[in-house]
Amino acid sequence: MAAKEKVFVVKVGGNVIDNPALLDTFLADFAKVPGRKVLIHGGGKIATRIGDKLGIESKYLNGRRITDAETVDVVTMVYGGLVNKQIVAKLQAAGANAIGLTGADANIIPAVKRPVKDVDYGFVGDIPAGTVQTAPLQLLLDAGLTPVLSPLTHDGKGQILNTNADTIASSVAVALASHYDVRLVFCFEKKGVLRDANDDDSVINLINQDVYRELLAAGALSDGILPKLENAFAAIGNGVKEVLIGHADDLRRNTSDAVAGTLIC
Amino acid sequence: MAAKEKVFVVKVGGNVIDNPALLDTFLADFAKVPGRKVLIHGGGKIATRIGDKLGIESKYLNGRRITDAETVDVVTMVYGGLVNKQIVAKLQAAGANAIGLTGADANIIPAVKRPVKDVDYGFVGDIPAGTVQTAPLQLLLDAGLTPVLSPLTHDGKGQILNTNADTIASSVAVALASHYDVRLVFCFEKKGVLRDANDDDSVINLINQDVYRELLAAGALSDGILPKLENAFAAIGNGVKEVLIGHADDLRRNTSDAVAGTLIC
Repeated sequence: MAAKEKVFVVKVGGNVIDNPALLDTFLADFAKVPGRKVLIHGGGKIATRIGDKLGIESKYLNGRRITDAETVDVVTMVYGGLVNKQIVAKLQAAGANAIGLTGADANIIPAVKRPVKDVDYGFVGDIPAGTVQTAPLQLLLDAGLTPVLSPLTHDGKGQILNTNADTIASSVAVALASHYDVRLVFCFEKKGVLRDANDDDSVINLINQDVYRELLAAGALSDGILPKLENAFAAIGNGVKEVLIGHADDLRRNTSDAVAGTLIC
Repeated sequence: MAAKEKVFVVKVGGNVIDNPALLDTFLADFAKVPGRKVLIHGGGKIATRIGDKLGIESKYLNGRRITDAETVDVVTMVYGGLVNKQIVAKLQAAGANAIGLTGADANIIPAVKRPVKDVDYGFVGDIPAGTVQTAPLQLLLDAGLTPVLSPLTHDGKGQILNTNADTIASSVAVALASHYDVRLVFCFEKKGVLRDANDDDSVINLINQDVYRELLAAGALSDGILPKLENAFAAIGNGVKEVLIGHADDLRRNTSDAVAGTLIC
């Protein structure tokens, strides 16, 4: 059997999006990653800033945005328009043939509006297992294009939905793993998963299920890192070859053999 | 030589975008147009409304928006994000496999910032002849996808530019004419080009260069229709087979053999 082609699925977080200098460096590095690659970007605080100016209050519960009808319009504008297209224009300038998309485009990510239980999260989309459409992604990747996905999906009935970018990254990586050797790289503003949240150099180089359980028991994991690790283990458990969590500045190393950051296995 | 495949390049104007009921009917009709098709949408007044709320004044000169740095962010959000993605989600619901793009995506429309002469139009992009990239459009069309283009281009140096939607429609139609039999259809809120702007039933069924000169000399053409006709003649003069100008409600007829509206030849 022929070896599968390699694909890097790279997620860049909101804190990087909010820092123009860090973002520019990151995008220049991302453009240089060889071969097939997909970028998934978070939203950052700009949606909150623009929502505030428009008189639309941002509401959060357990760290998740409550997305009412006005808010879904704001995130559609900001994530799907401003952030996504600025990234695309910059990647084009840096030599990557980027194409900016939401999960509604080409029906790449059909999602379901989160059911209302104790909390109504509003227009938030969950991605059922096995629903990400790989055909359009393969069409683009095999033509030398670089999909840039914003954290938006749709319900197939005409409604855009707000969806966590880590979840999109993990779901896309799993879907592509049927066709490619996938390395999923989460890029944020820390060097990796830290043993001590106050010590930026306490990076844990390798996390497996045993280490994960120890860290959970010790309460060593911050709220921000937990969903990344959950998504990382979900990816590894579903065919993704490698998952890395590291600093945006370390992207070049984390897309080579000399990895920095935290390797999940 | 084998007959070329047919492509409908359809432009829908801002006044339709601003009217939710008209837009929904139009999109349901557009989804039913058989075969290969491209939609180009205008912006509508929503960018102005959102700009106003954000405290960014809209400036116009000779009917063209002056696009300063703040304004280009607003149109990127509103045209490239909100309007484009809502159209895509609705088309997906109606059964068309839409993919929403700007001219920056896949480098489809490399443009140049309009040179400053008497007026500085700001971040406005003009499209040099022959620069629209047909390869990514062919890739999508031949895979059964329907590109939905917002009126945005880029300068190749990382800057998004605001570009007239009629011009984009004409340029895309001309580019595709090398590979397909192209019919370009401009859809707006009138039944066609009117002999008397105050009489909605005074549609001129056929306009050739002679009739055009007569109408110009008689001052019979409104400001809104002039750029459409200029773009229509530019398209006809450069390989596009047919150009139609008609009401958004007449799209089904204008993509069949029983045309309504004004035929340009």
